[in-house]
Amino acid sequence: MTDVYRESLALHKKYQGKIKIESVIPINNRKDLAVVYTPGVAEPCRKIAANPALSYDLTWRGRTVAVISDGSAVLGLGNIGPEAAIPVMEGKAILLKKFGGVDAVPIVVNTQNSAEIVSFVRQIAPSFAGINLEDISAPRCFQIEEELQNIGIPVFHDDQHGTAIVVKAALVNAAKVVGKPYESLNVVIIGAGAAGLAVAKMLLGISCLANVCQKIPRHPAVGSLIMVDRKGAIYAGRTDQNVYKQAIAGVSNLKKRQGAIGKTIKGADVVIGLSAPNLITGAMVRSMAKNPIVFSLANPTPEIMPDVAKKAGAAVVASGRSDFANQINNVLVFPGIFQAVIKGRLTTITQEMKLAASEALSNLVKKPSPAAIIPDPFTPHLADYVARAVLADK
Amino acid sequence: MTDVYRESLALHKKYQGKIKIESVIPINNRKDLAVVYTPGVAEPCRKIAANPALSYDLTWRGRTVAVISDGSAVLGLGNIGPEAAIPVMEGKAILLKKFGGVDAVPIVVNTQNSAEIVSFVRQIAPSFAGINLEDISAPRCFQIEEELQNIGIPVFHDDQHGTAIVVKAALVNAAKVVGKPYESLNVVIIGAGAAGLAVAKMLLGISCLANVCQKIPRHPAVGSLIMVDRKGAIYAGRTDQNVYKQAIAGVSNLKKRQGAIGKTIKGADVVIGLSAPNLITGAMVRSMAKNPIVFSLANPTPEIMPDVAKKAGAAVVASGRSDFANQINNVLVFPGIFQAVIKGRLTTITQEMKLAASEALSNLVKKPSPAAIIPDPFTPHLADYVARAVLADK
Repeated sequence: MTDVYRESLALHKKYQGKIKIESVIPINNRKDLAVVYTPGVAEPCRKIAANPALSYDLTWRGRTVAVISDGSAVLGLGNIGPEAAIPVMEGKAILLKKFGGVDAVPIVVNTQNSAEIVSFVRQIAPSFAGINLEDISAPRCFQIEEELQNIGIPVFHDDQHGTAIVVKAALVNAAKVVGKPYESLNVVIIGAGAAGLAVAKMLLGISCLANVCQKIPRHPAVGSLIMVDRKGAIYAGRTDQNVYKQAIAGVSNLKKRQGAIGKTIKGADVVIGLSAPNLITGAMVRSMAKNPIVFSLANPTPEIMPDVAKKAGAAVVASGRSDFANQINNVLVFPGIFQAVIKGRLTTITQEMKLAASEALSNLVKKPSPAAIIPDPFTPHLADYVARAVLADK
Repeated sequence: MTDVYRESLALHKKYQGKIKIESVIPINNRKDLAVVYTPGVAEPCRKIAANPALSYDLTWRGRTVAVISDGSAVLGLGNIGPEAAIPVMEGKAILLKKFGGVDAVPIVVNTQNSAEIVSFVRQIAPSFAGINLEDISAPRCFQIEEELQNIGIPVFHDDQHGTAIVVKAALVNAAKVVGKPYESLNVVIIGAGAAGLAVAKMLLGISCLANVCQKIPRHPAVGSLIMVDRKGAIYAGRTDQNVYKQAIAGVSNLKKRQGAIGKTIKGADVVIGLSAPNLITGAMVRSMAKNPIVFSLANPTPEIMPDVAKKAGAAVVASGRSDFANQINNVLVFPGIFQAVIKGRLTTITQEMKLAASEALSNLVKKPSPAAIIPDPFTPHLADYVARAVLADK
């Protein structure tokens, strides 16, 4: 066990988790009790009964979101179940508070039935101002999120959209570093799960509902894009593809190239790994176009180690790891997104808002360089900056 | 609007509710981030995946409960819906923290379908160490609670059991004050909702599953008991009674007395109101046995005002109000019950544990007097004392 794991385990044990509930109103005597509880509490109840929207002003709902998971796709650990997912959900809650100033409650559910998860989230909605879905496996996560788009509060699947927003922001700056126009980039994405498909949509400038995709106005797109899954390149007409892969197949890989990673990656400007450890070799990087961009984002072990990719000629390298430059981490974006949800009382988070968040993130790096294409998570006021950009597009 | 209502509304608005989430672990740099979040967090996840019970040791679950309501029977306000119930749930959470040291999360659900509520609670169970059901209307609350008795964590409907525990504790001491043996008391309960039926079971020393009741060993019972609802006294064979009233009818009012409150209350030693404002008159109190005991617990307006009851000859008077002596309030018991749930990692709260909590509460009053039959909520270490009694019966 490496140090970081040992230290994390010890810390979780010592503090019995990472968050707690605190009172914001003192209770010191019977009079205080009469004000915060019976009979006084009846008055805010009556006001909200007359106008349910006042629940945002008179209760913690107006500043609190839920982080909900079924434990079906936790980190790179797979389907480890609801209890084992709590540490990640609690981690999300602590980061929402630390970076976004947002109160967040971790909730795990002991069902992995999509319809039951949809019902559950609908039922819990009046308790919160927004929902962060987390670590729910693909393709279930797409259907679940789609069915939750009109429940009165925003539902945001961070593994999809948080990742897509940060990857696009990083890629825009990486393109500047290598001096290639973003719109000319030939991109290969390895992995067609929640993150891979969301990144593909973001880079293509489209939004999809089930298998129907459409171009988003004023949204830039890369030059070409091919997705690769376990069975090789995704293309229109390939059998054995779920509807979400079919939808992407209809708008990507227009030349219908086929084959495994090694074949597909040849001549590409960019490879983005959102898959599994060690799938990219140095030889593959050497087969790419000049000054290739390599985002190797599998956690904790990337598709190719950053130093190996560099040695093979990669001009810009990013990973999910904190021990290398250019850490692609959702923490750069979800605190700002949910701060916007709270401040703007959003009922939905549009694709345009996600785009605005991504642009804000790119723009924070004044002079992109090979070791600095994305801001540091500890950049002061980062979440405020992202939230403002999101709300400007409201 | 009286002062307490105005003040409560202003306070809820100023603080936007009553509770917040706080971090218990500092995050100041990328190294901290790597420990509390990825990659470090993977280690507690893996440990819990191998042994889900470790979720109690390694996450906030081990010290956190949920307070869940559907908003169908909030205070005396009735079915005001989930959003309007949040202030009460948040109040409960703040009191659990203040008095019991227990972290608690308010959750409201936008369904009032009993089967859906049962599913919801089952699904959310892995997130918490216990569930406090709150303000769910009768008779739905009985079925809901019964179906949730074997889900791995304890489910406690405070409106039933919290009230019953406190009322019994108060009645034991009131009996001492008037010098009548508890086992001789002739009791009339007005109101056969969640609280009324639970109090009846506690005073009769029985527990019931649907319509089957059984005596609890070593559990004292009052001499006789009659329940009265809107249609008059409840008795075996009366038509138009739900199964829960039928069950009580089978073991109470053995002489099958019939009629409204005024008739039933004649000659009684004790009347306990858990119903609606102004149902008891001075004349009714005067018709009771010598030195009558009057618990007038409707909130915020009691069945009879304490001073009126006294003037009519009541020897001991209790109400739910903080502005009179002998305030019967669940806050005396639920913080201790849930502290026991946390400390003892209870999977269920038995009738014996409730009895132990009630005895502990009675015993805290060393010398009961007409104005002091029950402890003050601010009694130091009250919850610790209750929790110890509950766990002694584990």
